[in-house]
Amino acid sequence: MALALSLGRRGLGRTAPNPAVGCVIVKEGRIVGRGWTQPGGRPHAETAALTQAGPAARGADVYVTLEPCAHQGETPPCAQALIDAGVARVVAATQDPDPRVSGQGLEMLRAAGIAVDVGLLEDDALQDNAGFFARVELDRPFVTLKLASSFDGRIATATGESQWITGLWARRYVHGLRARHDAVMVGGGTARKDDPSLTVRGLGTSWQPARVVISRRLDLPLMGTFARTAREVPVILCHGHDADATLMQTWEDLGATLLPCAAARGQLDPADILRQLAGHGLTRVFCEGGSALAASLIEADLVDELVGFTAGVAIGAEGLPCIGALGLEHLDDAARFALVRSTPLGGDVLHVWRRAP
Amino acid sequence: MALALSLGRRGLGRTAPNPAVGCVIVKEGRIVGRGWTQPGGRPHAETAALTQAGPAARGADVYVTLEPCAHQGETPPCAQALIDAGVARVVAATQDPDPRVSGQGLEMLRAAGIAVDVGLLEDDALQDNAGFFARVELDRPFVTLKLASSFDGRIATATGESQWITGLWARRYVHGLRARHDAVMVGGGTARKDDPSLTVRGLGTSWQPARVVISRRLDLPLMGTFARTAREVPVILCHGHDADATLMQTWEDLGATLLPCAAARGQLDPADILRQLAGHGLTRVFCEGGSALAASLIEADLVDELVGFTAGVAIGAEGLPCIGALGLEHLDDAARFALVRSTPLGGDVLHVWRRAP
Repeated sequence: MALALSLGRRGLGRTAPNPAVGCVIVKEGRIVGRGWTQPGGRPHAETAALTQAGPAARGADVYVTLEPCAHQGETPPCAQALIDAGVARVVAATQDPDPRVSGQGLEMLRAAGIAVDVGLLEDDALQDNAGFFARVELDRPFVTLKLASSFDGRIATATGESQWITGLWARRYVHGLRARHDAVMVGGGTARKDDPSLTVRGLGTSWQPARVVISRRLDLPLMGTFARTAREVPVILCHGHDADATLMQTWEDLGATLLPCAAARGQLDPADILRQLAGHGLTRVFCEGGSALAASLIEADLVDELVGFTAGVAIGAEGLPCIGALGLEHLDDAARFALVRSTPLGGDVLHVWRRAP
Repeated sequence: MALALSLGRRGLGRTAPNPAVGCVIVKEGRIVGRGWTQPGGRPHAETAALTQAGPAARGADVYVTLEPCAHQGETPPCAQALIDAGVARVVAATQDPDPRVSGQGLEMLRAAGIAVDVGLLEDDALQDNAGFFARVELDRPFVTLKLASSFDGRIATATGESQWITGLWARRYVHGLRARHDAVMVGGGTARKDDPSLTVRGLGTSWQPARVVISRRLDLPLMGTFARTAREVPVILCHGHDADATLMQTWEDLGATLLPCAAARGQLDPADILRQLAGHGLTRVFCEGGSALAASLIEADLVDELVGFTAGVAIGAEGLPCIGALGLEHLDDAARFALVRSTPLGGDVLHVWRRAP
């Protein structure tokens, strides 16, 4: 199952809105088939593994990181394919939260006389596909927030200098994180100030996550990187219902996707932004700031995972904070995150946190 | 030598202004004597180890973390004691930077026909006694700065709540750090706001580091913890030459030690503060804030080691920053520190940095 999970993770960032599933077929102690959800979500992991196993699947044990699907979608149900292949046993890491599937896939298998077990390494499976589960259960993507700052929590000097606070390895790691999400998201301020490309570079990957920019008024540079490259790598603009119609048309003409979102208290409502992004099929969103967007997500309790990079540099209180104002009155009301792991990375410290249970 | 270093570290925080030395005497593959500098600085490590070894020292190998002293101080020179004991070989981790000793101790040993080697685990020895070396060579103590903050670099909410940001283990670790320094230092603002005791608690130690408060005008609470306990655990007040004479008398009557320091740009000059503390015999100072004092030390490039504790909590931009204004214009001018190690500690992240070479 650990191997199946590892195979499944290969699909992260490429299978949305589908889950990134892994499957391993074992016959008499030997692996006869391995598969994972292919880019775009199909073929499913089970199909890929069964194809590889061929007739060897008969009487084999199947390890799959998510309950096999039971419904006729664009592909025939995997549960049926497993039955047709004559497998002896299916071990699923977890059930599928999708109401069209939940429990039915396992039921189909059992009805066909196949031994079924559920729950092996379930926590890992839930974590790997947290994006898929969040979209199905919460109607929003899983949100990872990156904070790359000086050890006093600053992301730029007062004059706006931010290149570079963290080192080469931290920046490379960020590219890896981008590649494992469906989209990279920044606020309009960051888009205007840094004109970032937000693409994955230097890792030899063949795909790119979409770029999401949050800008209520769509006042983004029309000569900037996003405008120039919207036809090469998707650009999704979350804007207010009151955005200028001409600007909307201009951005559509440039190739961007426009997602109108509800506003609240003068800014776009982060909950509605994520709802719209889930509606657009995104399951994993990687937010790279700036401080206002980070604060708005934290304040709304919409950050699932926090990835911090702390550099050995002091910028001082005039510097730009990594998280904007939160309106916090008491420490007891502060958002708490539980440490998952921390490790030195290049000359920086990497620390990963998840929403405290 | 590793054992000798480990023994030597037992004295850290208790031997100032003397170094914390360790000594191991080995005869025919067996340890016959172990010693370390005793509280107050005497007996020296070599004396303690020779006493334990007794006649077994004759013909033995001696591992000592610092060059044995050659001058007649309050105790007879250790080099002479080693000669008198008839040891065969002395391995010193490093030379003594004290001009009264440097090289002479080794010379005395060599002249007496003892084999002498220098430099084994020298980096560790230099680090362990960095406080002693800083006082001798730079006329200031070694400065460790603690930063215990939220992951956005805040040490309190806007309303001043700071208990507790970090967890129990981080706080216990801080008590251990206090115990290994000669003094714990805070700014006047922290003394007024938090009324801390800065003592070592919960570790079963029998000694306490001195408490140092930086307050130009001596406007510290006369009913506070420091005022009440100055006769139990030393309180050292660094103040301006322009401090009120009545206040100075009051604090002296309470049992505090007053150290007048030079002012610069409206605040006490951190370089002169450290010079005065070195003059008072301190070799290792642990600064626990607040943000203004931390900023003033960093700006003056007087922080040797930085111990950060990062907690999984978001406080937001209104919170109190861990480092005050630094007047930094360009990122290239920022103070850089090199990562020594980082590790999870309780639910927090501990990260230790040293002045970048």
